[in-house]
Amino acid sequence: MTKSNEEKYWNTRLKNAAEYVPGEQPQGPEGYIKLNTNENPFPPSKAVLEAIRAAANDSLKRYPDPTAHAIRVAYAAAKGLNPDNIFVGNGSDEIFTLILRGFVEPDGVAAFPYPSYALYGTLAQMNGIRYDTVSLSADFSYDMAGFLKKKYDLAIIANPNNPTGTYCEVDDIRSFMRKFKGLLVVDEAYIDFYGGSAADLTDEFSNIIVTHSMSKSYSLAGLRIGFAVAPEDIIRGLMKIKDSYNVNMLAAAGAVAALKDAKGFNYNIKMVVNNKEYLEESLAAMGFDLVPSRANFIFVKHPAITSRELYGKLKERKILVRHFTGPVQSDYVRISVGTMLEIKALAKEIAVIVGA
Amino acid sequence: MTKSNEEKYWNTRLKNAAEYVPGEQPQGPEGYIKLNTNENPFPPSKAVLEAIRAAANDSLKRYPDPTAHAIRVAYAAAKGLNPDNIFVGNGSDEIFTLILRGFVEPDGVAAFPYPSYALYGTLAQMNGIRYDTVSLSADFSYDMAGFLKKKYDLAIIANPNNPTGTYCEVDDIRSFMRKFKGLLVVDEAYIDFYGGSAADLTDEFSNIIVTHSMSKSYSLAGLRIGFAVAPEDIIRGLMKIKDSYNVNMLAAAGAVAALKDAKGFNYNIKMVVNNKEYLEESLAAMGFDLVPSRANFIFVKHPAITSRELYGKLKERKILVRHFTGPVQSDYVRISVGTMLEIKALAKEIAVIVGA
Repeated sequence: MTKSNEEKYWNTRLKNAAEYVPGEQPQGPEGYIKLNTNENPFPPSKAVLEAIRAAANDSLKRYPDPTAHAIRVAYAAAKGLNPDNIFVGNGSDEIFTLILRGFVEPDGVAAFPYPSYALYGTLAQMNGIRYDTVSLSADFSYDMAGFLKKKYDLAIIANPNNPTGTYCEVDDIRSFMRKFKGLLVVDEAYIDFYGGSAADLTDEFSNIIVTHSMSKSYSLAGLRIGFAVAPEDIIRGLMKIKDSYNVNMLAAAGAVAALKDAKGFNYNIKMVVNNKEYLEESLAAMGFDLVPSRANFIFVKHPAITSRELYGKLKERKILVRHFTGPVQSDYVRISVGTMLEIKALAKEIAVIVGA
Repeated sequence: MTKSNEEKYWNTRLKNAAEYVPGEQPQGPEGYIKLNTNENPFPPSKAVLEAIRAAANDSLKRYPDPTAHAIRVAYAAAKGLNPDNIFVGNGSDEIFTLILRGFVEPDGVAAFPYPSYALYGTLAQMNGIRYDTVSLSADFSYDMAGFLKKKYDLAIIANPNNPTGTYCEVDDIRSFMRKFKGLLVVDEAYIDFYGGSAADLTDEFSNIIVTHSMSKSYSLAGLRIGFAVAPEDIIRGLMKIKDSYNVNMLAAAGAVAALKDAKGFNYNIKMVVNNKEYLEESLAAMGFDLVPSRANFIFVKHPAITSRELYGKLKERKILVRHFTGPVQSDYVRISVGTMLEIKALAKEIAVIVGA
């Protein structure tokens, strides 16, 4: 038995990278109302569960299709795209990692907005890529000109942005792309709730990747399915660099069924949007400042209490919302949209806390 | 619509990397006897299928446990290890990628045996890591001294080796580790068929990682579950660099059930070993040269026919075996062990082809 050697075998970038901390996942989540990780409060389509049960058969002894062909065809059909422009990842996180590994030279520089999804910076560090942050404007809109101040090899924006919920019009992205020479990734994990995807820009420009996810709008965070829509040569690069069998058979079966159930999908979206707007009205009535959101979460603060305190008091009451550290964003809490019961329970507790 | 720009956005390492080509997966595999990708011919445990069906429920709307805690506990219990020494990957391929990304500096040098699993070299190229190959001895045993000729930062050996099936004794690995200063990865994807794991060496040395897989011995290639057993600080490094939720909920449910079904596992192993030995006897009787194998495949050649021809003639007869290009290994075919029906069909066709 030798003594632990304090990460002797970690390389420099791994040692120096900040740790990405996912939202709290309490043991025994049944005791909590969990509005902190932007999961969809409604169950996945029954067709998905049936397809997975049917796929739990002897063919699991075989390797899955390395190209995820069936999912790409189903996604292309659902979204009016060509399968050759589609890549399937083990969640969109995997796609961001692959992009940082395969599409930026080791001496390249990336740019990410702030505040935004903290994972982009962590992944850049893990892959030894330097990056700058471009601050959002005071109203939390994107300062796209900020991404043109230097020659960036890669930029990633979340649209709608996380944690603010704010949205950048496709026309503004199009204008930006006429000037931008690097690779732009538009992370559309939250796009389905209010629409407005930039996916069509992948026909107009050779240097744009649009990513989607089944975690939020399809209620399938547990399945790990993300998509990249991009020009064909970028898709071929992602295919080359990925692990041979990155999407397992059960996820494939579930994803195909979800993509075919347009009715269930639309109904789920409608419910989430309805609840989100109800939540916004309830909190506005109690004096909250609300950032305009086009996602399944809202970013809010109240003049009578710090957001850190509000987070803590809600946690004592077994309601989890997300509070981030860091400038600007620490002034707010991010609340994921729940079921109507969860929202009403939240609103009731908040009314007590802020004395509304 | 702009013209395709011929991989303009691929980085140098992605452009220069060789493509890893997985074994053929014909459309409509039912028409073929598929003995080319080392899958287990027997179905997974019924308990696995039941656990997956039960996990196909509303909780799929939630993110999976980022630490794969339940699988690590089940694996630790099954193998007599500590969960803190266990990492779970989306297949062991993901684990090799993570090791190359996080445990070798960009100017580091790796060493891999030849002939062995070609993926190691491809992954090194994808991650910009230089590597040497160390040829096996004439009898296909490892030349461990070859890995000490230079200061290597990383070495990966497959044990039993793929495609040869040959095995290196744990004591020989132990002797090697007393001299080796880099990180050694022992890829034990095929270890379960005849035993002899080096996992205990992770208690003795700080610089060894032993990987396992559920693809072969658990009949779960479609599920994508691989394990790393290593000293705790290496496990923490793997945890830090991996994507947040790399193992999906359904794979987790299936893996836990598989690890708890020791009886089903042992029965499966016994059947594979039995069929493998029957296959060896049949081919030996027809004049084949057999490399001694401790895996679920055999590496063979026949004096009357080139292996390329044998591969081609079997493919015409709808039997897929693996033929590799490259020195030494192109002299052989690798045949995965099938069911008794498949083996008998194979032996019958081979008898016609070689005139035995």
